[in-house]
Amino acid sequence: MSNELRVGVVGAGAMGADHIARITHRTSGAAVSAIIEPNPDRAAAAAESAPGTATFTRIEDAIDAGTVDAVLVATPGQFHFPVLEPALDARLPILCEKPLTQDSTSSWAVLEQEQKLDRPHIQVGFMRRFDPEYRALRDVIAAGDAGELLMLHCIHRNPSVPESYLQRMLITDSVVHEFDVVPWLAGSPIKTVEVKFPRRNTLAPERLREPILVLMELENGVLVDVEMNVSVQFGYQVAAEAVFESGIAHIGQPSGLQLWQGGRVSTAEHTSFVTRFADAYDAEVQRWVDAVRAGTLVDGPNAWDGYLVSRACEAGIAALEGGGIQSIDAPARPSFYA
Amino acid sequence: MSNELRVGVVGAGAMGADHIARITHRTSGAAVSAIIEPNPDRAAAAAESAPGTATFTRIEDAIDAGTVDAVLVATPGQFHFPVLEPALDARLPILCEKPLTQDSTSSWAVLEQEQKLDRPHIQVGFMRRFDPEYRALRDVIAAGDAGELLMLHCIHRNPSVPESYLQRMLITDSVVHEFDVVPWLAGSPIKTVEVKFPRRNTLAPERLREPILVLMELENGVLVDVEMNVSVQFGYQVAAEAVFESGIAHIGQPSGLQLWQGGRVSTAEHTSFVTRFADAYDAEVQRWVDAVRAGTLVDGPNAWDGYLVSRACEAGIAALEGGGIQSIDAPARPSFYA
Amino acid sequence: MSNELRVGVVGAGAMGADHIARITHRTSGAAVSAIIEPNPDRAAAAAESAPGTATFTRIEDAIDAGTVDAVLVATPGQFHFPVLEPALDARLPILCEKPLTQDSTSSWAVLEQEQKLDRPHIQVGFMRRFDPEYRALRDVIAAGDAGELLMLHCIHRNPSVPESYLQRMLITDSVVHEFDVVPWLAGSPIKTVEVKFPRRNTLAPERLREPILVLMELENGVLVDVEMNVSVQFGYQVAAEAVFESGIAHIGQPSGLQLWQGGRVSTAEHTSFVTRFADAYDAEVQRWVDAVRAGTLVDGPNAWDGYLVSRACEAGIAALEGGGIQSIDAPARPSFYA
Amino acid sequence: MSNELRVGVVGAGAMGADHIARITHRTSGAAVSAIIEPNPDRAAAAAESAPGTATFTRIEDAIDAGTVDAVLVATPGQFHFPVLEPALDARLPILCEKPLTQDSTSSWAVLEQEQKLDRPHIQVGFMRRFDPEYRALRDVIAAGDAGELLMLHCIHRNPSVPESYLQRMLITDSVVHEFDVVPWLAGSPIKTVEVKFPRRNTLAPERLREPILVLMELENGVLVDVEMNVSVQFGYQVAAEAVFESGIAHIGQPSGLQLWQGGRVSTAEHTSFVTRFADAYDAEVQRWVDAVRAGTLVDGPNAWDGYLVSRACEAGIAALEGGGIQSIDAPARPSFYA
Repeated sequence: MSNELRVGVVGAGAMGADHIARITHRTSGAAVSAIIEPNPDRAAAAAESAPGTATFTRIEDAIDAGTVDAVLVATPGQFHFPVLEPALDARLPILCEKPLTQDSTSSWAVLEQEQKLDRPHIQVGFMRRFDPEYRALRDVIAAGDAGELLMLHCIHRNPSVPESYLQRMLITDSVVHEFDVVPWLAGSPIKTVEVKFPRRNTLAPERLREPILVLMELENGVLVDVEMNVSVQFGYQVAAEAVFESGIAHIGQPSGLQLWQGGRVSTAEHTSFVTRFADAYDAEVQRWVDAVRAGTLVDGPNAWDGYLVSRACEAGIAALEGGGIQSIDAPARPSFYA
Repeated sequence: MSNELRVGVVGAGAMGADHIARITHRTSGAAVSAIIEPNPDRAAAAAESAPGTATFTRIEDAIDAGTVDAVLVATPGQFHFPVLEPALDARLPILCEKPLTQDSTSSWAVLEQEQKLDRPHIQVGFMRRFDPEYRALRDVIAAGDAGELLMLHCIHRNPSVPESYLQRMLITDSVVHEFDVVPWLAGSPIKTVEVKFPRRNTLAPERLREPILVLMELENGVLVDVEMNVSVQFGYQVAAEAVFESGIAHIGQPSGLQLWQGGRVSTAEHTSFVTRFADAYDAEVQRWVDAVRAGTLVDGPNAWDGYLVSRACEAGIAALEGGGIQSIDAPARPSFYA
Repeated sequence: MSNELRVGVVGAGAMGADHIARITHRTSGAAVSAIIEPNPDRAAAAAESAPGTATFTRIEDAIDAGTVDAVLVATPGQFHFPVLEPALDARLPILCEKPLTQDSTSSWAVLEQEQKLDRPHIQVGFMRRFDPEYRALRDVIAAGDAGELLMLHCIHRNPSVPESYLQRMLITDSVVHEFDVVPWLAGSPIKTVEVKFPRRNTLAPERLREPILVLMELENGVLVDVEMNVSVQFGYQVAAEAVFESGIAHIGQPSGLQLWQGGRVSTAEHTSFVTRFADAYDAEVQRWVDAVRAGTLVDGPNAWDGYLVSRACEAGIAALEGGGIQSIDAPARPSFYA
Repeated sequence: MSNELRVGVVGAGAMGADHIARITHRTSGAAVSAIIEPNPDRAAAAAESAPGTATFTRIEDAIDAGTVDAVLVATPGQFHFPVLEPALDARLPILCEKPLTQDSTSSWAVLEQEQKLDRPHIQVGFMRRFDPEYRALRDVIAAGDAGELLMLHCIHRNPSVPESYLQRMLITDSVVHEFDVVPWLAGSPIKTVEVKFPRRNTLAPERLREPILVLMELENGVLVDVEMNVSVQFGYQVAAEAVFESGIAHIGQPSGLQLWQGGRVSTAEHTSFVTRFADAYDAEVQRWVDAVRAGTLVDGPNAWDGYLVSRACEAGIAALEGGGIQSIDAPARPSFYA
């Protein structure tokens, strides 16, 4: 491939800055050509890390400037919708950080707009699909050597969360990853969602009632439990155990240098998703850039996947706040997304 | 200590034969003095393995013979009750394999009879309490270095089950171990029991709808999930992960010789509870023998613990067969068992 | 088996006290009937732990008292010879802690005396042969599934050593275990011994120049290296890696409860041989008791094995002090020890 | 950074093709502008994978064409010298696959030529320095938290070797990696080299007498052993264990998805250096590209490091073929390479 892909990055907060550094220093065949960020300090700091990049406060202006071949949306989720609209209007390929939008209604509107184009233009940034261990697990499930998949035990632990993290975000910001990756692993959509409350962690911020145990039944009968736990202090940990008819597969075990000292042998645990999924983010962006340059535009979860996740989040919130087993009755997948 | 403890073993099936071999060859300070077994072939085979041991068809006759200082009950659970009665009558210390009896009503009757004695005489054979890893886990929980216990994830997998194993035995024969060990670990009784059904394992016998996921809430708010899975083919596996406020403890990882061959590094998994808990059974019986010889009679779960487990099993069966969240409202612990 | 074996334990220091507790509380079919210990305080303390046991200052008196069926020698190595002589005279079965005697000349004298009896009466206390992992490794080597054994990498690390531990004891007290277990594993005697000096550990006592790397060539060409390291502070560690033509087997990895805390996942390491080899010592003594009661007298390394080890130690000391590659030219095994 | 670095790749065999794919698809800020390869089939195949790239049979022509900013040398080692000369003449930055040249005399000549330039232009492709675990190990050594480094146990195992692999290549092609990485880890050059021969692997090609055990003493007294083993069949394995005064650090343990099946729990081992060091190669090339674009030219082992390795290889060959302990007396490091 020749010509570098000129990427406009929308949002220069922590996530956006990370993507700007990635595209500038680790992605082959792409460069950041525009930074769209209303906060002038953030915009200036980001521009400094990618010399020669123009900054804009509105995506429309960046598009009009004619230097953007594709858009990476890295703002908080509630600001995705107003960015996706002009980008789709301009027929630009889009890598949109998760979630697609803040609810299923707005996600549906995005789907409707996208279907006016010749083919899907939006990839959603669920990076776990690009993690080598998740990919290996999916291969093992698909191979079926140990029989059918029966259960999935998922672990999702964060050392702590910022002040902006509210109770609902246990679902919309955290379990949202399992809502995407579990159906992708198991090859079957989510049918119901339920939430159980263990004893509360007193180290959690006062506003949070957590950890929680989320139970999901998939259409194919697979039962999934997710320990969602965001104040564990000791590290960042994402793991999954797949139970087959005649075997087990486990991912997420810490690895690397082992240290024998003071009566114990130990291995370092990750402390943040940034290091745990560094390779996954790199692969996600590289493959998206390759797909856009090759004209296939999307190589990963698309807007329809993003819509299904928004439906699951709504069921998850209902279960979190109202209790009971909440069903998800999604419409059929449009042929546009086949 | 001097004089060997003369143990009468009731039941010479697989479990009884195992205990006879244990007491004869690996337990200090005890010998099998009588084998009580109605089946003459089994009795003869067992007697051969413990030379010079008298055999009886009824426990009453063994007691009358005056050569029995203590009784180890290893018959199937439904035959425990008629054996416990004469043994208690004779004021003999008893190690009774789990379960105490087949239901909570008969267990209650046993409690009433035992309370006529000066102190508890019955120990129930929940051997996990003597497993080094379970003991280490209990110590970690009790120490509280990582804060309060919030959740327990339990794994209980068997390669297969015999023809005699029926659906209810998922609870009464298998989860029964978690019903005992979980409150002992967590320091809190079980409050509710619920059962979820994942996709069915097609390798399970036709009569079984399994695996199941059992959820328990403890009085102290700890949430427990147990994967109960009896047709996994690949091995026997018992594991538990304790989730604390700021740490995790895990037991049950395979260990021992590691083999690098054919592109993989591997460790052997147990294939039966016999090897997995060999040390636990040895310790259980040795400590019981020591306790009886020292006059304390019981060093482990007592009849009250056995009664609580029978209540949990009844709730578990109700949940298995009728669904819903089943409560356990046990009476207060009698001071006799304090 | 009936009648308990009455064991006279010679030496009531740390090792002897440990064996007295073992025989009294954990060994089936045996009891300590006599404690032979010149130090009255030690003798009294030991007798207290095994009530009703007679104490003696000389083994001859204990033998004359007629209450000793077998002898367990647990004094320091330099005192073994004068104990073995009267015990052999009395035709008693003997379990002698390693080493057999303090040098090959005195060991040879023991062999000569023993050969006047009808069959071997001495077992030497190299307990590693009873460790489950070493036994598993030997089985893997013998099975030959991964081809011939080519190399053995051995690790032998102690947290620290007492003041009485001198430079030569790196060989005679520590590597002595590898001198026994390596030929037993590999099925071939040691041909040469060589010692290499890495950088010195400044945490070692001033009198010690350690760690050392001991290299051995076996008669069958297998090359063995042993890291001998006695001031590592962090724990007690014994491990071995067997290199086959098409595979690797490794033993000695720490196991048990895993703890996730403070950014690391860790497992406890042993801190002493007492816990690391607790099961091995128990099995060694139980099997010896069983063998004596069954009339086979020895079930483990015999005096000839002990003699070969004393020859290896002498070569090891020569290599340690004089350098170079030291050969061992042992005489042929007498048919008495076939 | 702007302008892409135009890289001329010399050699389009397996290694060269791998680097071409890397630069084309995974390296940020660089593109392959020229392929120098005398074999027309190889040149054509390589050019197809990097569309629009010119091919040349001689490096001089590629340089004259004016489209090469930097050179990556990926031919077999014996062809490095005639390529380095014109590249240095043209003052081009060079990433030269290991070894620098085929012997220390020619390496010295390269050093002399390079020192005519203003600063070092050559980086040598010892990729282990870019492996995350080796880097972590180096950090642990440098931190000194567990005291001084005393020993290093190294494992280097290949499943098999091609027909072109000869006895000397055990040193020049394989141990060459330890000759570079060990001094880098330990912060001290190699002083002596010795080779020991274990039992021969009958699965090795007839021309090879292997495995071998290579012993090295470093200037700072650290003792290093390397198991070099190239016919192990079961996988590709590179590991190292650092022995400190009060701790141990180990790298090279297999990681990733764990599979419980058929009575064992296992993890896949690598089968080739291509996957084991994929990240290391990517990082090596990316950092070199970044260094060249930033004008620092070298970010990794330089030609002086390559020269020292060639001296170590000569000592290693002498030890392999002639036996004994072979000394390395390298000249002082020129200030040019300080």
